[in-house]
Amino acid sequence: MKIIIAGAGAMGSRFALMLHQAKNEVILVDGWQEHIDAIRANGLKANFNGEEISEKIPIYHQKEVNKVDFSAELVILFTKVMQLDGMLQAIKPLIGEKTKVLCLLNGIGHEDIIRNYVPLNNVLLGNTMWTAGLEGPGKAKLFGNGSIDLQNLGTAGKSDAQAVIEVLNKAGLNARYSENILSSIYKKACVNGTMNGLCTILDSNMADFGETTVSEQIVKSIVSEFFAVANAQNIELHMDEVLAQIHSCYNRETIGLHHPSMYQDLIINHRLTEIDYINGAIVRKGKEFDIPTPYCSFLTQLVHAKEQLIGAK
Amino acid sequence: MKIIIAGAGAMGSRFALMLHQAKNEVILVDGWQEHIDAIRANGLKANFNGEEISEKIPIYHQKEVNKVDFSAELVILFTKVMQLDGMLQAIKPLIGEKTKVLCLLNGIGHEDIIRNYVPLNNVLLGNTMWTAGLEGPGKAKLFGNGSIDLQNLGTAGKSDAQAVIEVLNKAGLNARYSENILSSIYKKACVNGTMNGLCTILDSNMADFGETTVSEQIVKSIVSEFFAVANAQNIELHMDEVLAQIHSCYNRETIGLHHPSMYQDLIINHRLTEIDYINGAIVRKGKEFDIPTPYCSFLTQLVHAKEQLIGAK
Repeated sequence: MKIIIAGAGAMGSRFALMLHQAKNEVILVDGWQEHIDAIRANGLKANFNGEEISEKIPIYHQKEVNKVDFSAELVILFTKVMQLDGMLQAIKPLIGEKTKVLCLLNGIGHEDIIRNYVPLNNVLLGNTMWTAGLEGPGKAKLFGNGSIDLQNLGTAGKSDAQAVIEVLNKAGLNARYSENILSSIYKKACVNGTMNGLCTILDSNMADFGETTVSEQIVKSIVSEFFAVANAQNIELHMDEVLAQIHSCYNRETIGLHHPSMYQDLIINHRLTEIDYINGAIVRKGKEFDIPTPYCSFLTQLVHAKEQLIGAK
Repeated sequence: MKIIIAGAGAMGSRFALMLHQAKNEVILVDGWQEHIDAIRANGLKANFNGEEISEKIPIYHQKEVNKVDFSAELVILFTKVMQLDGMLQAIKPLIGEKTKVLCLLNGIGHEDIIRNYVPLNNVLLGNTMWTAGLEGPGKAKLFGNGSIDLQNLGTAGKSDAQAVIEVLNKAGLNARYSENILSSIYKKACVNGTMNGLCTILDSNMADFGETTVSEQIVKSIVSEFFAVANAQNIELHMDEVLAQIHSCYNRETIGLHHPSMYQDLIINHRLTEIDYINGAIVRKGKEFDIPTPYCSFLTQLVHAKEQLIGAK
């Protein structure tokens, strides 16, 4: 299959390497010149479950990709959320009438952006448990196992997604069709929508936050807003399940001592956060459905204030 | 006049010194042994507008004050808010039927505690612009000018407060009777209820916070909750006035580069904050009047989380 990986960061690199090794025709598109130069010079390198690998995979800057002759059958979006719209603009000339577009980004409401470029029948929205890290320009660090759930958001349904699922599975990416992907996405967003913003604003790891006497009240207030917005869209969520998943983040023996990704982005690396696509998305959808979302609103504002105070870019 | 200064911290020291110098019979009550020992050994010392002064003023630990023979005509409360109830319990034996109790503490709802010990007709609630600092045990730093507004909250009204106002004025404390003290207190609480918690949680000075693009939305959301609760109690407030006072805190040439007192308490000195008597009081009063106060609620919870994460005492 002819595949564009749009966004060649950590996760994009994982998918590119695994799909390339499974004999697909893969190209990468990215906006980070140093990364592009390194991959052109040395191939895309990775520590892949302890083994050092390197694969020659074509990579283009998103500014130049409009000149590339490549009729993509599948685009997998792995940009930063804030760069999604710009990437779609850049690769639009390579997206044909039948090109499927798979979005596995964290957060809520990306389909509202993607549908401006691609008919909903060609959009596959998904959720992945794969992880990945980047050691530096051109070099990924890929450990462990994962899976993908995805769903066609249009009327095309499961049959139309089957070819993509097969390609992903031949590459070992463990994909399966879901009939309620928005539930999975909202469930994950409830975890990110509490742990990310709260640990960032409070300068705390997840376990320490979880042990404060106020964590449960705060978490329930935020999650209730996610539930109200999900409910208005007939997306089914179960409070017990969501709270259990949040509580599992407090476990000191597993992930509790970690800071969530937003903390790393903002507090460690002084990068802008994805808060607008997590809690901020709930505020936007809340306005649409006339649902008050003050906790998500305040948390979004606090994170934006912190971005500006830190001078994040 | 026979006066108990209940709480001999910075402000208590100022009032004690000025009232003692004006020939009143003043005693101090406090709970900090090192401070008590220093005042007993060397008198209450102060840098008073540049002049080093020292006055012998009796001081008692609040644990021993019940044995003291002193029929107070006036008690001035200057404890930390969290210690108000304990102090009132301690000095209760010294409060007679006619003892006036003046409370000038920052924050909202102290009258709800005081009325458990003193009839409302004897309670004077006030607001002061005086400032004071403590250099160490037994030594205050007192600069600048100030004033006091106060009101009798019972039916006794102005005439009954007149003797206290005269005593304060003879000591140069610039007191005057107010017919709407709760308006002044709520107005001040709006400033403290935004600057204190927000700068503490965001680790910011007031000017930097004010310059973020989200400050005005956050401030208006919080202040609106104060207004709703004030309105339910027929306390008059003007949005333009309150916002103007908050905006004046952002001025880099005056106080903008300072961190508010809560920041100093919690972030610098790892002390518990008074958030329960500012935003937390709005949450309690909001429940009483069935008014939603999510911003005050979330900010109160975040500050409590931060207290626990820091190990504040």
